Amino acid sequence: MSAFEYFQENWTPVINDFLEKLLKDEVDDHKISQIMAYSVMAGGKRLRPLLFLSTLNTLGKKIDESEIRIACGIELIHTYSLIHDDLPAMDNDDYRRGKLTSHKKWGEAEAILAGDALLPMGIQWIAEGSQSAELVSIITRAVGPNGMVGGQYLDIDSTNNSSVSNDDKFINRMEWLKTGCLIEASVEMAAVYAKASDIEKVKLVDFSRVFGRAYQIYDDLVDIVETSEEAGKATHKDEEEGKNNTLTLLGIDKSRQKLKELINEAKDDLKDLNSEVLLGFLDLYKKVL
Amino acid sequence: MSAFEYFQENWTPVINDFLEKLLKDEVDDHKISQIMAYSVMAGGKRLRPLLFLSTLNTLGKKIDESEIRIACGIELIHTYSLIHDDLPAMDNDDYRRGKLTSHKKWGEAEAILAGDALLPMGIQWIAEGSQSAELVSIITRAVGPNGMVGGQYLDIDSTNNSSVSNDDKFINRMEWLKTGCLIEASVEMAAVYAKASDIEKVKLVDFSRVFGRAYQIYDDLVDIVETSEEAGKATHKDEEEGKNNTLTLLGIDKSRQKLKELINEAKDDLKDLNSEVLLGFLDLYKKVL
Repeated sequence: MSAFEYFQENWTPVINDFLEKLLKDEVDDHKISQIMAYSVMAGGKRLRPLLFLSTLNTLGKKIDESEIRIACGIELIHTYSLIHDDLPAMDNDDYRRGKLTSHKKWGEAEAILAGDALLPMGIQWIAEGSQSAELVSIITRAVGPNGMVGGQYLDIDSTNNSSVSNDDKFINRMEWLKTGCLIEASVEMAAVYAKASDIEKVKLVDFSRVFGRAYQIYDDLVDIVETSEEAGKATHKDEEEGKNNTLTLLGIDKSRQKLKELINEAKDDLKDLNSEVLLGFLDLYKKVL
Repeated sequence: MSAFEYFQENWTPVINDFLEKLLKDEVDDHKISQIMAYSVMAGGKRLRPLLFLSTLNTLGKKIDESEIRIACGIELIHTYSLIHDDLPAMDNDDYRRGKLTSHKKWGEAEAILAGDALLPMGIQWIAEGSQSAELVSIITRAVGPNGMVGGQYLDIDSTNNSSVSNDDKFINRMEWLKTGCLIEASVEMAAVYAKASDIEKVKLVDFSRVFGRAYQIYDDLVDIVETSEEAGKATHKDEEEGKNNTLTLLGIDKSRQKLKELINEAKDDLKDLNSEVLLGFLDLYKKVL
């Protein structure tokens, strides 16, 4: 078992237990708690919280309850983004991770509100776990109009807009904002929280940017390579709906090539760090190569 | 001119200019910036930012750019809540402050995303203006599942549910969460930020709770007393749609009586403070008495 697999097997249940317990204990209304937990506990990989914790590990920072609270705050925010992305007015998806999406299960108003509840609670956990206004600044910038929500807006705005379907720069920017910003923030928050040196921080943030860019290409490839059953959501859907991404731009072979290049770049960023665990994240991409 | 009127006339344009300038300068994408600013600049009274600043004034804290940034962060969050409340899946309102609502003007996806952009940016401004994780904790709790969003959920869940239309306790709780929590947070953040003594803080927070409770009754009375043209939105709508509030429970006369009692209670809370400006907020309610 690799260091990464060991780390993942160790901390994933801790994250899951914490999320389940706190959504029960810290949300007063039972029904809202249930609606929030339905999506949070739907079987995500906990990639972003694990990335946060792995970066702490790389920097020799001990992981305790405060650190888990921050990590889980990131997952709440990620879940909010999925719930809103799936809404009828947005991507209009019926299934996510093999289960009915929030609005299909609970209703549209309930899904909007579940997302609206998860976002501030995620930021709250980050603020209270870290006691740091700087971490709040990092996460709120990453998910605001110049980050994740900005990317989602460009996506909505450009769907079926053929004038941008071949615009490499536009697509890179959109994909970066949609997915990369939150991944970068997960690593950057860990670097700031663990008081990394300037050099460590630059390397880690560089790694997170390359990893995040690779993740989007990976995600698009999963959409094509896997069957709908394996992926737990509707696949082959992006192309049908006129969505523009690196895959529709480069095709499968060149996307795989690009992904390999990015993996090597990411490995390079981690070279001089105590990065055994972080390196393991790159193995995730093997299944589409 | 009262001290309150002077304060309001002095700071309202400062708040408005700051909001307009920063939404232009700090949002990269012109179109998203425009959609956000459309709702933020739609002519609100800036009640919550003014409450924050007036509480600072009461405590003798100087108002400078950092303080304005926090105040404006509160207004972004308030505006997000209005945009999402108006959505078709929620209250389905076409007009707000006499203008088309965000989703009517820009589309539903755009309105959801404008709200999703304003919330984290509002928290960001509060974090960066205050450099305080405690203020972030106060604001995120106030707007999360145990605060504003929780109230909105109870509202949606109880509309046309006759089993709660006579439940005084349920209605008080729902109205408190929907409107009161953010008002209380505006005052509590100022008390923490200006390092109020424990006694000052208790009095100010008490005041904010009574003021917030009164505000909801006032808002419901405006819905009946004013014509649609004066209020800038559809009035007499709550009753038609089976919405439960203090007004449908008590009727107009007893609601007015209740409001008068709350005003006296609020005045009592402010008695020993340097509260000339804060007291003036209570004059707002005169127009429905």
